[in-house]
Amino acid sequence: MTTCPLPHEETERVLLGHGSGGRLMAELIDDVIARELGTHGPLEDAALLDGTDLVVSTDGFVVTPRFFPGGDIGSLAVHGTVNDLAMRGARPIALTLAFVVEEGLPIEELRQVTRSAAKAAQDAGVPIVTGDTKVVGRGAADGLYVTTTGIGVRLPRARPSAAAGVVGDVVLLSGPIGAHGTAILSAREDLGFEAEIVSDSRPLHRLVAAMVEAGGRDVHVLRDPTRGGLASALNELAEASRVAVEVVEDDVPVPPAVAAACELLGLDPFHVANEGCLVAFVAPDSAPAVLAAMRARPEGAQARVVGRVLDGPAGRVTARTTIGSTRIVDMLIGEQLPRIC
Amino acid sequence: MTTCPLPHEETERVLLGHGSGGRLMAELIDDVIARELGTHGPLEDAALLDGTDLVVSTDGFVVTPRFFPGGDIGSLAVHGTVNDLAMRGARPIALTLAFVVEEGLPIEELRQVTRSAAKAAQDAGVPIVTGDTKVVGRGAADGLYVTTTGIGVRLPRARPSAAAGVVGDVVLLSGPIGAHGTAILSAREDLGFEAEIVSDSRPLHRLVAAMVEAGGRDVHVLRDPTRGGLASALNELAEASRVAVEVVEDDVPVPPAVAAACELLGLDPFHVANEGCLVAFVAPDSAPAVLAAMRARPEGAQARVVGRVLDGPAGRVTARTTIGSTRIVDMLIGEQLPRIC
Repeated sequence: MTTCPLPHEETERVLLGHGSGGRLMAELIDDVIARELGTHGPLEDAALLDGTDLVVSTDGFVVTPRFFPGGDIGSLAVHGTVNDLAMRGARPIALTLAFVVEEGLPIEELRQVTRSAAKAAQDAGVPIVTGDTKVVGRGAADGLYVTTTGIGVRLPRARPSAAAGVVGDVVLLSGPIGAHGTAILSAREDLGFEAEIVSDSRPLHRLVAAMVEAGGRDVHVLRDPTRGGLASALNELAEASRVAVEVVEDDVPVPPAVAAACELLGLDPFHVANEGCLVAFVAPDSAPAVLAAMRARPEGAQARVVGRVLDGPAGRVTARTTIGSTRIVDMLIGEQLPRIC
Repeated sequence: MTTCPLPHEETERVLLGHGSGGRLMAELIDDVIARELGTHGPLEDAALLDGTDLVVSTDGFVVTPRFFPGGDIGSLAVHGTVNDLAMRGARPIALTLAFVVEEGLPIEELRQVTRSAAKAAQDAGVPIVTGDTKVVGRGAADGLYVTTTGIGVRLPRARPSAAAGVVGDVVLLSGPIGAHGTAILSAREDLGFEAEIVSDSRPLHRLVAAMVEAGGRDVHVLRDPTRGGLASALNELAEASRVAVEVVEDDVPVPPAVAAACELLGLDPFHVANEGCLVAFVAPDSAPAVLAAMRARPEGAQARVVGRVLDGPAGRVTARTTIGSTRIVDMLIGEQLPRIC
């Protein structure tokens, strides 16, 4: 029999902040999960299987509310997993869908979420090949949790990795930030922004294919800034690539409604989750072609250069402001936006 | 924005029995999930990806208690997914691990479960390649849920399918039934059987490889009788293969402690979940060789012939008893053993 953990006086416990994509979460993953699994190394959105061109990613979704402007837990799960594969330069070929359902959930709601996942998968051109359903008693879950796993095949010329950023790389951003997180919070808190802020949840694999077509191996790093937002993504990438990153604050587009919601909620848009944009580090020679390829697609129409990879302290991310000063862009530390995805 | 489901007067809701692997669950999957996904067809434990030799399976684990005689939620998740791949004749090559953690879970417990999953994966010779962790607030989960996904490559000569049973096939069972479900219930209810009943949770992929080596394509059907037990597994297989199945009740081994616990709890051992045995339909010419190959491995040492595939009404499963009478072996209807895996 496996021994149960003994209680001791200062039991360390999992905090809500451990789930927010920030520094606490990185510590939990490094110190507990990666250590036990023996899988140290740069944090990637998806794993490349040794000796193959297969890429695999898994992601749990616990978003509340389950239905929000721009999507629901079903479409979000599909988009999130498609995007994690895309960030490793993979073309998604199959998805799986596992539900944990709380007793008492209206069957119609399960049907709607399944339908939405099926439609998102069809629109992305990726089949959902298998699934699983577990039911737990009332109070043992909050309605419905979804875990999706995706399998992809690496695009022939694609080798992006979190650790592959190089000094001199141009930092590209595919579109405005902050919409997903503020859409969820607006829906949750009934802030009155519901009409204006719609989650950016969408699949990015076609955008990535166009970028790789244009830039090949010069597309060094790809990352979708989900939990923890752009700030956490840039910090993780700068850390993994052992470089510094500087962004120009005014070049990072924040829609006015998102900015207003962030102001009201006391949030930094750089820390708010996104589900439909990506950040890329691209070699300077290929950056113009990659940017042009991005702008030619609807999901990259607002793409732009937002910064540069610098030869500075590994992991340092700074933002240059209008008045010429620079500020440190930190990872989110603990709790900001629980259950955002 | 996706429309939220409207409340109506008689809202059908998910019941705990929808999760028990019986008929209610089959209906939920057929009527709601498979219909929306457009994936009708025989129920398989894992999916073969079109145009490849890749097999994929996903499974959620919500077992309570998380630590039980013979394993814990971590090792169970690994074994369950390895076995689902094996039942499609696949050699597992990679696993993913996704956690939903309730705020307040002792970090030490998360560490133990991760360590146990890592050890089970190492013992099975399958790497855990990537994972995900989500944290939900207190009361929004019951400690820890685990979703594992497995990827495998089909063994060269293996073509088992739930729908491939043929009249005349011999029904083989790899070992005694009922240990997992009664071990969980004993631990949960403090019945006093804890010392005697240990879950049979273990990986079966090496047993399957030996069976396929011995029988090749004559190994028509493989299934591990988990939720819903041997009865539900045989019903699903008889239904999918459009055949009848007869088992000889006395030839199905039930350990004395399991039989006693079932008597006390009012359970039929045929309905109790297993996590370390399998049932196979094998062409009669190859059955002796396959049986010998099973018995040569520790996990198949007690393998035996337990029945026969008959030319009867599709989906009918009967048990012949000592006194020569036969009884219908039904699928579990609703709730019997919630959160057994």
